[in-house]
Amino acid sequence: MSSANEQVVLVERPQGVPVPGDFGVRRIDEPLGEGLLCETLHISLDPYLRGRLSGRHISGPILPGEPMSSEMVLRTCEAGDGVREGDLVRAFGAWQRRVRLPVGALTPIPQGIEPPSLALGVLGMPGLTAYAGIERLLQPAEGDVLVVSAAAGPVGATVGQLAKARGARTVGIAGSEAKCAWLLGEAGFDAAINYKATPLRDALDAACPDGIDRYFDNVGGDVLQAVIERLALNARVALCGLMDQYNSEKPPPGPNPALVIGARATLRGLVVYDHEDLRPQMESELQPMLRAGRLAFREDVAIGLEAAPDAFCRLMAGRNFGKAIVRVAAE
Amino acid sequence: MSSANEQVVLVERPQGVPVPGDFGVRRIDEPLGEGLLCETLHISLDPYLRGRLSGRHISGPILPGEPMSSEMVLRTCEAGDGVREGDLVRAFGAWQRRVRLPVGALTPIPQGIEPPSLALGVLGMPGLTAYAGIERLLQPAEGDVLVVSAAAGPVGATVGQLAKARGARTVGIAGSEAKCAWLLGEAGFDAAINYKATPLRDALDAACPDGIDRYFDNVGGDVLQAVIERLALNARVALCGLMDQYNSEKPPPGPNPALVIGARATLRGLVVYDHEDLRPQMESELQPMLRAGRLAFREDVAIGLEAAPDAFCRLMAGRNFGKAIVRVAAE
Repeated sequence: MSSANEQVVLVERPQGVPVPGDFGVRRIDEPLGEGLLCETLHISLDPYLRGRLSGRHISGPILPGEPMSSEMVLRTCEAGDGVREGDLVRAFGAWQRRVRLPVGALTPIPQGIEPPSLALGVLGMPGLTAYAGIERLLQPAEGDVLVVSAAAGPVGATVGQLAKARGARTVGIAGSEAKCAWLLGEAGFDAAINYKATPLRDALDAACPDGIDRYFDNVGGDVLQAVIERLALNARVALCGLMDQYNSEKPPPGPNPALVIGARATLRGLVVYDHEDLRPQMESELQPMLRAGRLAFREDVAIGLEAAPDAFCRLMAGRNFGKAIVRVAAE
Repeated sequence: MSSANEQVVLVERPQGVPVPGDFGVRRIDEPLGEGLLCETLHISLDPYLRGRLSGRHISGPILPGEPMSSEMVLRTCEAGDGVREGDLVRAFGAWQRRVRLPVGALTPIPQGIEPPSLALGVLGMPGLTAYAGIERLLQPAEGDVLVVSAAAGPVGATVGQLAKARGARTVGIAGSEAKCAWLLGEAGFDAAINYKATPLRDALDAACPDGIDRYFDNVGGDVLQAVIERLALNARVALCGLMDQYNSEKPPPGPNPALVIGARATLRGLVVYDHEDLRPQMESELQPMLRAGRLAFREDVAIGLEAAPDAFCRLMAGRNFGKAIVRVAAE
């Protein structure tokens, strides 16, 4: 607590894939204003943040000169209304060593969530995203063929494993052999496609000869196009992530509606903020699966606040493997 | 019955908007093979037929040299199993003066459907399309803002009037001042936009300042794009027609999925063949509305089999006004 406080700021709006030089780490003065003093333990790096840097995300822009911010795990340094000193909490806040946040913005991390960084991953927003996609949008049934893109990420891997637990045949699309091996091995997918190594359309035809019943889309772009060309009758698609276009200046077009009509498909947009009410149900289903070793996950952990820019750039280049986290301080 | 039989054939696959020279009328020999002899009274002209000429429609291609075919109203010239001589029936068949069709392919036209050509329009496939879109896909509620394109056609006008009857505010998009005047007058739409005379995006902003809750799409293309840019939260979209691309060789792209995600919208493909079970319910709701003068419709009638090619070309150029019908013989 004696070291100087620092924060990660956006220096320049990235062009295309962000580079570490788009960010900077600067020393900041304390005190930090109003709110309860908290020490940052873990920072969540998420692809949607790239949309904020272009001013295109519904959670608002981050402008040059402003600190980067996202969801974090923190330890309280003071007691407040309903919070003791030393509690582990999660909150949205600036990427800095110490922050002051209104006590109402802090959500205690339940006992069973171990390690606490899971509150940013499979038991946090990514897990809730996957859970809402399965429970409310896709509702896969026994025998359905479910495809998910960015399948080795915390959303995609959880989508696949939840679908498998409901009797679906699961096909994951990911960008490396290591990710595909993990999907087939630890995560129990029925098939995995390395879209960087094989022609995607041929691989989808081979893995889904009778078409695709359910698709959870984390990427958009040509992967979405290729899947929509292969939908089975009455297919359902959850549109959730846009990895393919976060780094683009101009929004690209999407698939021809003729494909949706022909398949009598249902496409629906998923924003996790709408499904906060599902969180207790998500935790109560996923925690026992985790404890029993029936829910695989990976974390890709960078160490130290100063590592955050590079880790975020690796994420946006698709070079992470698992939930991207920055460990700022030990628990 | 003594005149020579003739049929309309496709001579050449159209390039772009069809022209009358793409079709021909030829004399054919009788007898016509198996089935019950029927005299053609009315031929239904529908935009989806253009997709068949490109080999792109789910109901199969029509190749050069083959007769044009679609749904028709016929009078039986013979009695058969469950059908008397002189009955009015509807069936899919070739565009010719007399056809022979299996008795199982003939559906009697109920007494209340007057004139019988309504069995091809507001009380036929277009009416069922509209009814399924409202009842099963869009389900507009009191106060919803519903937009429909190709609004003066038999599908669009029925969609708007059914939505209005369910308490929605209805906005029709059409391609002429006369169509818009009819939408506002006889069909009781709350607003009408002539997309050929006003910038569509400005007109939609003015007519739907709080966004669009329900959209029934008959056209695709830039109209679909403009509407999707303006969806209200939790909007629903029925994707049904593709007038914008039926005349194109290459399928164009569609809207960026980011717009669907941001609106948490649901897009669903509608093919009327899936909703045949709704037909009795559609008839029992629409017939009383028609009799009471609470359901406006227009027919655009061409007279004589030889007029069919030109009438179809006018339809595909958007120059029809109302349900396009060819009257081959008087009832």
